[in-house]
Parts: sequence; C-alpha cells; structure tokens
Amino acid sequence: MAAGLTGPIHVIGAGLLGTSIGLAASRQGVTVWLSDHNPEHVRTAVGLGAGVAVPPDGVPQLVVVAVPPVHIAEVAVAALETGAVVTDIGSVKAQPLAQISDHVGEDLLTRYVGSHPMAGNERSGPLAASASLFDGRPWAVTPHVHSDPGAVLLVEELIALCGAVGVRLSPVEHDLAVARTSHVPHLLAVLAAGQLNDAVPEHLSLSGQGVRDVTRVAGGDPELYSQIIRANAGVVGDLLRGVRDQLDELIAAVDDPTDGASGADLGEILTRGRAGTRIIPGKHGRAPLATGPLFVLVPDQPGELARLFADIGEIGVNVEDLRIDHDPGRPVGLVELQVEAAAAERLRQALEARNWTSHR
Amino acid sequence: MAAGLTGPIHVIGAGLLGTSIGLAASRQGVTVWLSDHNPEHVRTAVGLGAGVAVPPDGVPQLVVVAVPPVHIAEVAVAALETGAVVTDIGSVKAQPLAQISDHVGEDLLTRYVGSHPMAGNERSGPLAASASLFDGRPWAVTPHVHSDPGAVLLVEELIALCGAVGVRLSPVEHDLAVARTSHVPHLLAVLAAGQLNDAVPEHLSLSGQGVRDVTRVAGGDPELYSQIIRANAGVVGDLLRGVRDQLDELIAAVDDPTDGASGADLGEILTRGRAGTRIIPGKHGRAPLATGPLFVLVPDQPGELARLFADIGEIGVNVEDLRIDHDPGRPVGLVELQVEAAAAERLRQALEARNWTSHR
Repeated sequence: MAAGLTGPIHVIGAGLLGTSIGLAASRQGVTVWLSDHNPEHVRTAVGLGAGVAVPPDGVPQLVVVAVPPVHIAEVAVAALETGAVVTDIGSVKAQPLAQISDHVGEDLLTRYVGSHPMAGNERSGPLAASASLFDGRPWAVTPHVHSDPGAVLLVEELIALCGAVGVRLSPVEHDLAVARTSHVPHLLAVLAAGQLNDAVPEHLSLSGQGVRDVTRVAGGDPELYSQIIRANAGVVGDLLRGVRDQLDELIAAVDDPTDGASGADLGEILTRGRAGTRIIPGKHGRAPLATGPLFVLVPDQPGELARLFADIGEIGVNVEDLRIDHDPGRPVGLVELQVEAAAAERLRQALEARNWTSHR
Repeated sequence: MAAGLTGPIHVIGAGLLGTSIGLAASRQGVTVWLSDHNPEHVRTAVGLGAGVAVPPDGVPQLVVVAVPPVHIAEVAVAALETGAVVTDIGSVKAQPLAQISDHVGEDLLTRYVGSHPMAGNERSGPLAASASLFDGRPWAVTPHVHSDPGAVLLVEELIALCGAVGVRLSPVEHDLAVARTSHVPHLLAVLAAGQLNDAVPEHLSLSGQGVRDVTRVAGGDPELYSQIIRANAGVVGDLLRGVRDQLDELIAAVDDPTDGASGADLGEILTRGRAGTRIIPGKHGRAPLATGPLFVLVPDQPGELARLFADIGEIGVNVEDLRIDHDPGRPVGLVELQVEAAAAERLRQALEARNWTSHR
C-alpha cells in the first residue's frame, strides 16, 4: 500500500458531508472525484470547487462512501472490488462491516476501514457544505481485526487533511459510544417532544427554554434517524431496556409519598442525572472549566449585541459560551454568558459601569 | 377589597424571585416589606433596594409567598389570617390550594390566589435578583372556585407591575401544563444524563452538541426539583406512565427487524417527536419566525466575538438566536447564528467580504 495520501480520492455521495470532504481535500491540493446518483448534487459540488465530476478511468487511492446508511454496504463492496482503500462515514460501524464481510473475502476486507466524523447532522445537501466543517472535530476511525495497518493510516491521513481529530475505537465500541451519547438521548428527546402533541394547545404557552433545549434534536429528519437507529438496533434496544428500568424506578419514586422509604428515592435519581451532566467532556476536550453565568439584558434589535461584545472585548474577558433566552413574550433579549467563574463578578461590575443591566 | 394595587406588598422569602419582585415593585414606587428566615438574605435584598426589612405594624395589601415549595401552605395560612390578599409563586398550584383549604375556611380562602412566574430556576439567592427578571415573561395566575374577583385582579396588577404577562389557568390545568412542558421533559433529561454514568469514560469523547442540549436542565438542584415534582406527583406520575407506554412501543419498534410490520413503526414515532418540536410557541409568543442557521468560525480569544458582532451590526441583520459550538478538540469556536431565513444568504456574503469563514 502506498505510503501517504496523494489521491485521487473518490467521494461517492455529494451531500453535506461528502461535499465538505471534497472541499477540504481539494483545498489541500489533492485530486477529488465526485459522484452521486443525483447529477444535480454533483454539479453543485463541482461548482463549489469540491472536485471533478464523473470519475475518469483508473483506480482512486481512497474511496469515501458518503451515502445514506441503507446503501453503504452495497456501495462499499463495489468500491473494494476496484482495488482502492475504502472508508465509509456512516453513523454506525458494526452493521456495515458485517454486511460487507458477507460479500467480500478477507483479501478485499483488509482495505475497508470504517469511520465517522462528529459533524453536521441537522443540515443536508451540498449547498450546506464547508471545507471547515470538520475543523477540530472528533472523527472516529474503526479498524477491524482484518484491517491493513496501511489502510488505517490512509484514513487517518484523510481525517487530518480535513482538520479533524482521529479517535480510534473498534466498531462495536464505537456503536456503544454513540448509542449512549447520541442515539438514546435523541430518542428520549423524541419522547419528550412527542408527549407535547397531547397537550391542550394553550398550555404550551408556559413552555420555557428548558423544554426547547431538551427537545431540539427531535426536530431532525425522521427518515435519516430511523436508518441510523435501525442500523444500531441491538445496542440501542439494550440501552433502552436499561432506561425503562430507570423509568420504572422513577415512577415508583414519584408515586411513593414517603420519598425513599420504599426504596425508590427521587433525590437520588435526580442527583445521578446531575452527575451525568458533569462528566461530558468540556470545550476543546479539556476538563470542564469552572464557569459561571452572567445575564445581560439586550434590546432585541440590530447592533445591540455588537455593542455588548465590543464592551466585553475591551474589558478583556473571554466568553466560553452564550445563549440568547427567547421565552415567549420577552420584549428584550436576555443573553446568558458563561465566563470563567473567577472573572464573572469583575465582568458584571465593568458592564454595569457601562450602563448594561446584568445579574449573575 | 380596595381597587388598585397601592401597597404595601409584603414579600416573604428574599431569594431570587422574592427579591426580584421587591425590586420591580419598588422601582414602580410601591412600598415593599421584606422578610426571610435568613436575616442575611433580607440585608442583601434591602441593600439592593428591594424594600424595607422587618414588616412594620399593620396589614399589607398583598402578601407574596416566595418560600420553598414545602413551606408554602404554612406561610400562606398565617398570611391569610392577617387579612391580606395572598398569592404564592410556587411551581405547582393544586397541592398548596388543597393544603391551605385544609386549614382555613372559605371566608379566608377567597383572598388566596396562587400564581407562578415562568422565570429563573437555574440560579438562586437575592444577589442573582433583577427588577427585569420577569420582563415580558408568562406568569400563570390560577384562580379557584372561591377566589374573590378583586383578589385575582390584585395579583394580576402585581404581574403587570413586574412587566410580566398574566396567563389565567385553573390550578389543575396549570399543573398539567407544567407537567408536560417542564416536569416530564426535565425527568427525561435526567434519565438521558443518568445513563451516561454507565459509559466507558473514553466513549464520552464522542459527545456532541445534541447530548449537551438534551441533558442541560438535568444539571439543576436535585433538592429543589425533588420538591417541585413531589408536589405535582399525581399528574407527573400519570404522564410518566404514558411515556413508559411510548417507550415500550419504541423498544418494540427498535427490536422489530421488519420496521413496522409488527405494528410498531420507528419512523412514525420519530415523526410524532418532530411534530412536537414544531408546536412550541416561538420567540415573543409570536408564531415561530422562519429562521435559518449561519455558521461562522471565530478564533477562541477575547475580542473576536466583538469583532463579529460589530460587523453583523454594521451589515444590519438581527440575530434571533446564537450558540457557540464547543465540541471537544475544536481549536476555534463555531458560532451558529439564527437569522431570518430571507437574510441569511445576504449576511453570509457580507461576512465573507469581511474575511469571515462562514457556511450555511
């Protein structure tokens, strides 16, 4: 296997992710071939500078399979038969490996290495693509027992070329990880959103930011998520059975007027949930920084946020995170800044001195 | 009952909400008396200008009970016995009404009208208070069958004084509404966060923005939420049993390799969830504005957000919402702006012309 990713790279599927990979690789001077069952997508991606259409004769060095989950195995098998190294970028890794193994021998299977970039699920299509979509993002690479080490390195070179950070996991480990961190939270958001359909419509006027946050991901495309979850059905089903046990405990705790005397303790369940929110890695993968909130009232019109951030910049405090609170009926925006805890009070006083209304 | 809220208002409980009410009423020139079992809270609240300490002799026109859920009924009963109109601002309304009814006759009960401002649950203490905390927020007011109409109007005057928007509901309707829009989503977030504790720690490096959003509210104080949910246990328990039925259906759908042939259809469940996200009222209570995302890469250092918002201000596009994406390992921040869909492309081009890297 040739050392070094020199191209050509054949990207099959010119949607958001495929086109973004094409843009990133082309930017680095690597030749990219693009194909898609939808010729309009190829025209758009080529127009954006993501590569050239209709693969010329010859075998690419690397094929990137960027098609919907249900078509991955079929497309990958055909690509392996050309002699190229093949990766796919689907959200689930064990099932496509098993399907591909059913159709090719070990000699071909050595050249298949699955991968999964953690980027861009809520948008779609080549127009949403960007060469910087993967900058600094985790990108799982999932070697299997027959993978050629050179093929693994080639896929890791693609990941580096796209500016992402490779995370090596076995296919099974990967699927367990995304089931916990993505699929199960997604499905619980779907249940939280689903039960709103049974509400008396006027009651929804009491909705605050909390329910908006909890349910946001449930707004994703049902067809895409159905494919993703079905492809990881074994792991997701097992974890959901665990969640059902927790839900049964929760119901028992809510029903129990003695609060814990019967064994189910609501406070313990809530405390365990809070612990879970605290083990999610922080910004830039470092340990979560101790940050504190600072709330600032901002008139809801152009230019006001600029004025606020100009003042914060002059004061010299870094904003770790922020959100605009937009509960119904609020005529002014409430901006919640997350800043290093030690700097929050200094920032509050400096903003008050500049006539901003703020509170912690 | 005297027409018009002229004061004094006695706020019992000088925490975040009580002190904020004191600040808002004092700002409007109404006399506010403050008390709290913690004298330090009263000193702080008085220092902020929320009112005067130690109620002088005499009966206030209106008592606002702003104490933790478990103490509401006891404090409200004592307040009713002074002859004042009494409201509480607890998160649940049927239970305190029942408890108060157990201790006072109908003649006193006429002067009790519960209420519930939709504001400020993630912070606490008088230092976090603000006269503008309730500006434009929904504030439920929950008359019961014995409420004096004059008492209801007086509480609605308090709500207007605080800049909030009154929403009349019966106590039972209110509790059902918050169970659906707040308590059940909160508990599902707790379950989503709770199961992360069982993850292999390295697997959490694949956490994206989705799981952060779904689980954020689960970071709230377990003791406070335990009191709130226990006070609404009947309604919450019933809704959770409905959620368990939905979860059983979901598990059956995930387990079913025929996708729907056995009756449980994953796509249908996901579609119902998406429908739920779309019926939550939008910003300022108006119909959800058609907004589109615009992603901008911003170096993670002081002054860069200021530069971005200065440019957006000059371009003249209003930002409806924004978030900073802080997935692990990302060396630059990705700021997601939500802007009116019709203005998104114009803003993107104008930002690119100013050398920002952005994509839609």
